[in-house]
Amino acid sequence: MAQQRLKYFGWGREGEGMTAAEEIAALERYRHLFGVSNFEDKTPPALAEISLRPPRIVPPAALSPICSCELYDRVAHTYGKSYRDYARGLDGDYAAAPDVVAYPRNEGEIAAVLDWTGGAQAAIVPFGAGSSVVGGVEPQIDGVSHKAAVTLDLRHLDRVVEIDHLSRAARIQAGAFGPALEAQLRPHGLTLRHFPQSYEYSTLGGWIATRSGGHFASLYTHIDDLVESIRMVTPKGVIETRRLPGSGAGPSPDRLLIGSEGILGVITEAWMRLQQRPRFRAGGAVRFADFFSAARAVRAVAQAGLYPANCRILDPQEAYNTGAGDGSSAIMVLAFESGDHPLDAWIARALECCADHGGVPERPGERDTHREGAAEQWRSAFIRMPYARERVIRRAVIADTFETAITWERFETFHNRVKTATETAIRDATGRPGLVTCRFTHIYPDGPAPYFSFHALGRHGTLERQWRAIKSAAGDALIEAGGTITHHHAVGRDHRRWYDRQRPELFAAALRAAKRTLDPQGMLNPGVLVDP
Amino acid sequence: MAQQRLKYFGWGREGEGMTAAEEIAALERYRHLFGVSNFEDKTPPALAEISLRPPRIVPPAALSPICSCELYDRVAHTYGKSYRDYARGLDGDYAAAPDVVAYPRNEGEIAAVLDWTGGAQAAIVPFGAGSSVVGGVEPQIDGVSHKAAVTLDLRHLDRVVEIDHLSRAARIQAGAFGPALEAQLRPHGLTLRHFPQSYEYSTLGGWIATRSGGHFASLYTHIDDLVESIRMVTPKGVIETRRLPGSGAGPSPDRLLIGSEGILGVITEAWMRLQQRPRFRAGGAVRFADFFSAARAVRAVAQAGLYPANCRILDPQEAYNTGAGDGSSAIMVLAFESGDHPLDAWIARALECCADHGGVPERPGERDTHREGAAEQWRSAFIRMPYARERVIRRAVIADTFETAITWERFETFHNRVKTATETAIRDATGRPGLVTCRFTHIYPDGPAPYFSFHALGRHGTLERQWRAIKSAAGDALIEAGGTITHHHAVGRDHRRWYDRQRPELFAAALRAAKRTLDPQGMLNPGVLVDP
Repeated sequence: MAQQRLKYFGWGREGEGMTAAEEIAALERYRHLFGVSNFEDKTPPALAEISLRPPRIVPPAALSPICSCELYDRVAHTYGKSYRDYARGLDGDYAAAPDVVAYPRNEGEIAAVLDWTGGAQAAIVPFGAGSSVVGGVEPQIDGVSHKAAVTLDLRHLDRVVEIDHLSRAARIQAGAFGPALEAQLRPHGLTLRHFPQSYEYSTLGGWIATRSGGHFASLYTHIDDLVESIRMVTPKGVIETRRLPGSGAGPSPDRLLIGSEGILGVITEAWMRLQQRPRFRAGGAVRFADFFSAARAVRAVAQAGLYPANCRILDPQEAYNTGAGDGSSAIMVLAFESGDHPLDAWIARALECCADHGGVPERPGERDTHREGAAEQWRSAFIRMPYARERVIRRAVIADTFETAITWERFETFHNRVKTATETAIRDATGRPGLVTCRFTHIYPDGPAPYFSFHALGRHGTLERQWRAIKSAAGDALIEAGGTITHHHAVGRDHRRWYDRQRPELFAAALRAAKRTLDPQGMLNPGVLVDP
Repeated sequence: MAQQRLKYFGWGREGEGMTAAEEIAALERYRHLFGVSNFEDKTPPALAEISLRPPRIVPPAALSPICSCELYDRVAHTYGKSYRDYARGLDGDYAAAPDVVAYPRNEGEIAAVLDWTGGAQAAIVPFGAGSSVVGGVEPQIDGVSHKAAVTLDLRHLDRVVEIDHLSRAARIQAGAFGPALEAQLRPHGLTLRHFPQSYEYSTLGGWIATRSGGHFASLYTHIDDLVESIRMVTPKGVIETRRLPGSGAGPSPDRLLIGSEGILGVITEAWMRLQQRPRFRAGGAVRFADFFSAARAVRAVAQAGLYPANCRILDPQEAYNTGAGDGSSAIMVLAFESGDHPLDAWIARALECCADHGGVPERPGERDTHREGAAEQWRSAFIRMPYARERVIRRAVIADTFETAITWERFETFHNRVKTATETAIRDATGRPGLVTCRFTHIYPDGPAPYFSFHALGRHGTLERQWRAIKSAAGDALIEAGGTITHHHAVGRDHRRWYDRQRPELFAAALRAAKRTLDPQGMLNPGVLVDP
């Protein structure tokens, strides 16, 4: 059955979205929060209303069967899915649209496109499913060093090519979307179990290029840990790392490619470490008096060596917003899973850690409640969340998230400083209070990965500027208080300013030198991570 | 109490070594193995008998208080502890001796030494405790691009500077030896628990520079996983990475420095992730009919998500050699440990995995036998092992080890091919059969890290050549059969040939570009990992 095409504005495919009931509920919450009775509704332009500059290059005849200059293709590849992207899309601003979108079917065609863009002085932007929330796939060229922009959409490289059952690994093409990849593994009883929030509309190659954070709250937090080897096409040729369970032979080649965000080459496939499908589960929701008590319980669990698959906490307001709580307590969504053994000892000890910090299980005595109550409520909300943005922005609501990581000894001060800076910026930028909430997405023995959501009421015509003021204050606070500008959303173009403050200058120099070696013309994703 | 100085020939400090009884037992085993009644005993030259070329440079006055051109210092810094190093030492060949050994006390002095060597066109070799078994600390210069060699001994940077109890992390100087580092952490109830075989005579900086493999057989196998951030002095300035529990901001800066083997800069300190000292233990030895059955049990345990601290298997002959077995069965040394919780559920499930493959616990019913029986026997032998080499080489015994990693589906073929190639090379090089044994040092869900030992009877005067023939055959077999040339011993100069075949050429080009950026004169550890 042919799938609907991806939306050019919004999350997922055409025809998908919030239900009317979901939208009414969301807007009702915002009315209450902002103390307004109505919203001005602005409609995003229809596709036919969008006008683009004529393409500045045309593909050579040999490549024209895999290239498109159609309006839909160019518009749908202009942006990712960040708030800023929607703000500009709502205003009909598609100035950054690529001139050409190429859909290669194999490495030979990728190399041919690189040859062509090299000769044509065009920038090239590798594109998975376009779910970047950090400006990672938006072509930005100066018209001088790059005369045009070509987006390279990997969607046709979508196969699980080879499975190694004994080693529990598979060779998978980089353009495979999450569900397609899992569907090909399922008949073998195997799973990658990498489920970022963008899972349905993101690809293996995108996950690797951006150091995506996945399903596992502890241990295998980033895709990094699941990569056994990588194949990448660069302008200078192919890099293929050796398939090994572990190695100590010099600096890891994989770790230079993981997180390279399209600036070194195009990831075409990877051998990935897989899991057995879980047969045993234990978990549920645990309530705490406040967020910091819950955080202390998380620290205890993280340092106990229990490695829960889920150990996410929501502050009271975040719990309320997702329907997982009434706003009076913080909630931990705790889960263990295994394809091998029952988990009674694991959950029992984790609940003891929680009890030490006042944590009370939602359904005491029941140990596998992961599909019930607050835990299930949060899960559903989590999956549906990305569909909200395209609707609420029409009402000038500014709703965005940012995420980070920090060591435990700084966490409480850090949290308060970042939250206050963001709240203050919301008042300054919009003239009224908004809301800033926090949860943890991933946990480590030495610190959590806090994830902040904020909600503000902006004004049509100035949304991007208002959003930028809030985002800037938050980014400054994150970096000044010792955090990372991103734990798993990547750097892209939106985080460059803070990334430049965070990473050692000499590392940037070394990365620039590596890029110059692999991409001497600087055509790959210019402006991301480093300047040419 | 002042410590004895490190031996210039041999393991550890002066006055340490095998006991007479240990030596008699070792030589008796070798007599039996090679079918000889006596060995020719060659005595290594006394220090005073060694003659070195006069130093080709002298340190400037400002640095002379921290520099030495004394015979002992130069001789003791010529080599690491590889078989090849001992073979040349036995022959009195110290042509590679550094001209000067510097003992800086802080980063300022390190920078000053780099300034001086840069101006003097001298190569500079960072040196921890000199336990490299891969030619990682031997100055090799051509006399043209580098006119002299200076070794930089980090021993005075030996302090645990700062402890963060909440995050369970410590800032530790790079020159701290294993025992000194643990002694400073112990009063705080904390431990790094990184115990390579070289633990007593290796340093934190050396571990990080070489991606050392440690105590934990699974999960935190390499030092890589324990590093939170790094400080490094390069010829272009200081790199300090941000202290974070996790991050997704571009390719990991730490991972470029980890494993850089002294070619990018001098690691001066690192924030390290620590553990609680274990309070709970469960484990013991498990016997298997043969090595491959044991390996299948290891695979089951590794894929079960149990994360044992130890899960090492010895083939029957390796078990016999270390006194852990009678040579009729393979042995698994299995251990779980925790500072947090009892481990009954963990060990019970691991023993079920073993039983599925015919594994029989040595002392059924007892679950904490890690300090008894075969497990304890193996542990003692493991710690004493490095002292044997300096004694047996005097009898022209060639005894060495090499280690690797391979995915499970290739393991059995790989093992047989490598073992056969090494056995054949021993016969070809020495004219008589030797012995090749195998154990696992570390395990992963997707494959083991096999560790081979070999024993041959050589002839004085040709030991290095004979060793090289065997080592070459083994290295070729490892690489051709798909393994890594090193899982945790590092590349150094001895593994360069195979490393060059294993790592992608374009990665080498990128690494070379990074090195040129940080070390434009190419003075740091020339010949290691990449050519200038």
